[in-house]
Amino acid sequence: MIKIALAQRNYHIGNFESNTKKIIESINDARENGADLVVFAELCVCGYPARDFLEFKEFIDYCATAVKQIAEVCTGIACIIGLPTYNLKDEGKDLFNSAYFIEDGQVKAIVNKALLPNYDVFDEYRYFEPETDFNCIDFKGHRIALTICEDLWNTIENPLYITRPMDKLITQNPDVMINIAASPFAYNHDEERIDILSNNAKQYNLPLFYVNQVGAQTELIFDGGSLIFEAGGKLLDEMPYFNEHTSYYTLDKDASGKSTITFDHPHTIKSAHTSDIEQIHQGLLLGIRDYFYKSGFSKAILGLSGGIDSAVVCALAAEALGPENVMAVLLPSRFSSDHSISDAEDLVKNLGCLSETVAIKNITEAFETALQPQFQNLPFNIAEENIQSRSRAVVLMAMSNKFGYILLNTSNKSEAAVGYGTLYGDMCGGISVLGDVYKTQVYDLANHINRDTEIIPVNSITKPPSAELRPGQKDSDSLPEYDILDTILMEYIEHR
Amino acid sequence: MIKIALAQRNYHIGNFESNTKKIIESINDARENGADLVVFAELCVCGYPARDFLEFKEFIDYCATAVKQIAEVCTGIACIIGLPTYNLKDEGKDLFNSAYFIEDGQVKAIVNKALLPNYDVFDEYRYFEPETDFNCIDFKGHRIALTICEDLWNTIENPLYITRPMDKLITQNPDVMINIAASPFAYNHDEERIDILSNNAKQYNLPLFYVNQVGAQTELIFDGGSLIFEAGGKLLDEMPYFNEHTSYYTLDKDASGKSTITFDHPHTIKSAHTSDIEQIHQGLLLGIRDYFYKSGFSKAILGLSGGIDSAVVCALAAEALGPENVMAVLLPSRFSSDHSISDAEDLVKNLGCLSETVAIKNITEAFETALQPQFQNLPFNIAEENIQSRSRAVVLMAMSNKFGYILLNTSNKSEAAVGYGTLYGDMCGGISVLGDVYKTQVYDLANHINRDTEIIPVNSITKPPSAELRPGQKDSDSLPEYDILDTILMEYIEHR
Repeated sequence: MIKIALAQRNYHIGNFESNTKKIIESINDARENGADLVVFAELCVCGYPARDFLEFKEFIDYCATAVKQIAEVCTGIACIIGLPTYNLKDEGKDLFNSAYFIEDGQVKAIVNKALLPNYDVFDEYRYFEPETDFNCIDFKGHRIALTICEDLWNTIENPLYITRPMDKLITQNPDVMINIAASPFAYNHDEERIDILSNNAKQYNLPLFYVNQVGAQTELIFDGGSLIFEAGGKLLDEMPYFNEHTSYYTLDKDASGKSTITFDHPHTIKSAHTSDIEQIHQGLLLGIRDYFYKSGFSKAILGLSGGIDSAVVCALAAEALGPENVMAVLLPSRFSSDHSISDAEDLVKNLGCLSETVAIKNITEAFETALQPQFQNLPFNIAEENIQSRSRAVVLMAMSNKFGYILLNTSNKSEAAVGYGTLYGDMCGGISVLGDVYKTQVYDLANHINRDTEIIPVNSITKPPSAELRPGQKDSDSLPEYDILDTILMEYIEHR
Repeated sequence: MIKIALAQRNYHIGNFESNTKKIIESINDARENGADLVVFAELCVCGYPARDFLEFKEFIDYCATAVKQIAEVCTGIACIIGLPTYNLKDEGKDLFNSAYFIEDGQVKAIVNKALLPNYDVFDEYRYFEPETDFNCIDFKGHRIALTICEDLWNTIENPLYITRPMDKLITQNPDVMINIAASPFAYNHDEERIDILSNNAKQYNLPLFYVNQVGAQTELIFDGGSLIFEAGGKLLDEMPYFNEHTSYYTLDKDASGKSTITFDHPHTIKSAHTSDIEQIHQGLLLGIRDYFYKSGFSKAILGLSGGIDSAVVCALAAEALGPENVMAVLLPSRFSSDHSISDAEDLVKNLGCLSETVAIKNITEAFETALQPQFQNLPFNIAEENIQSRSRAVVLMAMSNKFGYILLNTSNKSEAAVGYGTLYGDMCGGISVLGDVYKTQVYDLANHINRDTEIIPVNSITKPPSAELRPGQKDSDSLPEYDILDTILMEYIEHR
């Protein structure tokens, strides 16, 4: 009988001090709570995805130093951590994506990842050599089949890889599977993950402990939701999404020698009860928060037009960073409608964030006057439209430079996909909050934010979308209605 | 005895009509010139790198249609072409990077790439499954070991891959090697390529025909320079760099059965006689020309400051596109020095390109006035500096939008690497002409452009670099001298 702690944590790429501290504290906590083994996520030591940092020797050396520090405190308990390690053979790439099993201050076993995802957001084969040798780990009367993320992911039809690590490991008669992962959030990914992992627990008839990361890094959000299955595939427990958490489980064998899992805390299966839009909402909050925190920023700025996109971004930023850290700038032009300004003002009032108004009329006129010798009497067209959007960007970036705010981009995925925006204008920003959210989802998000009370003015949600760069302009002058456009984009972008 | 034509061509990603036409015309030409076999480059049918287009079924179908069209005309001659094809096995990725051997209207043999580069600019493992089965091709009394690019590249110490296709093929007793490639330009790459391929011809003691692409695609430039080695490794012939070309060779066997190569045209080994800076110059011209041509553009615009970077970009653009297609805009501010304006005017005169002057003083004042309530009496700093650079970008983009010019970015690699530039200001542009050219190389390039006559005003080359965004500003106020900085950057970026 062993007690296993699953430590679901938020790591920070290249911040070895923070990651190591977090891992060591979790080991100490787990030991105090009577755990025999504490399991962390894939590449937890350096953060995931570390990308080209992996090509620097110093970065790999930092990982090795962290292992020494972690091993030193890992006495009276065992742990599983993930890190890049050198491939000592002459041939093949220089690194493995490894899991270390540490017990009583010593690295007792090393497992390397065999299936290296290199599709969609993944680029692992760029850095890592795939493992071809597989061995179980014996620990206190249990035999553990330890794998890393994608190693369990090759069970689908038309599989991407020609090998299955578990098919090799199962021949050594393990009694439990542990998988450490860095599996990013997508609003439909939680169900897919449960399906695939459940199939493994069923196919190999073994219990399965699955530990994911949580937190945002680069353009990815890791949603946690670590999972525990009994042999046969039944989902026993599910850890929280979008938050750090530790859960404890007792692994034992029954009279027939079959492994069993028991635990004290209430059984929770959250994924079934959380709507897609609530997941997106939580994911975006975590994304904003971690982008600012991990980059060393605290204050955000954005242009508030009175339209739905900037309203939703402003509401999300105020929730993620606190309204006192969000500066909303109204930038009316000669084409801005009265309701745009009043809708923006209402939102600022509802959120309690900071705001300023900078009219751009004199600025755009200065551009038009300066360009008069070149433009002569050519008709007003997209050139003058874009001058407005770009003048706003210059104002926002000037305030960013002067006061240290980071500009939030307010483009949604639909308009970004079709190029309905101004390059160096409304396409500017350090983080694109809605860049992976279709316009129709932005509406859902606005209604979700308003579920208890009107935060986003209803008028911002119900009025026809417009860039307001010429009189009477509407998005539908240039684009299909968004429900049609989004269906097309979804088929093209997500389903190819 | 067979006569082999090597067809070094400039392909266009996804332009199946153009690529197929070019391949068919080359087959017809080669037949007229008595060739038995004409060899094209890797993935010539679709262009390289086709990236995520490869995930669209329609794209792969277009390749199959092109093969049918090519095979139809390929009678009385054989050809080797490259294209993506489906992997028909259930397991593994869906595509191979293939070479087709077509003879008398039929696909007689298919060879798939085994070693898929996934480092630096390469991402092939993202799309392709590696081949594990290897077979020579018999053709008119010769046995050909046909490989694709990287398949011959695994001979170095600490090799990236655990297999070597030629080690398998050599057991089938081929008498000649043919390698089709898409090997991008770097100014030191020509020598490395000759070394590695010569080592293959030596190690396997076989003659080697190597056909590369030429032309720019995405951010890559392919430099051609196809190579011909005799058994033992001696470089026999080298095709032109940066241009399309066809060369003919006769492959025969001597009395001992050893393969020999003869050819009529003069023996040329160009790489040894071309300086690095001349190669860079030629590469950048090809890069500009193909970016515009393949994107459907013809006219360029840039801001001309009187400094060396924009002067070199302007001279390169005038040479690549014709001076009548280049619009240089002088954008003086209150901090622009007199010599900046006169140096820019001299360059415009020397090149004969178009020019306009748009003073930005009233524009930057309009921004400062509009922001006065927010900035109050805070001192002039980087915010006001960047307003100037961004105002210039808005003017240039307005002219781009009004007249259809494409903005050339004038940042060099050194300043881009350290962030010495203005985001959404001088960092704007559709193509970054000097984005991979260090500042010290920009000086070399300027002197090279002036090798016969003073095109770039000497004063632009000799004066201390300055952004001229505040009085008396010099680059050296913020950065090390460029010879020191470039040494550091080269160690960090190129050598990690």
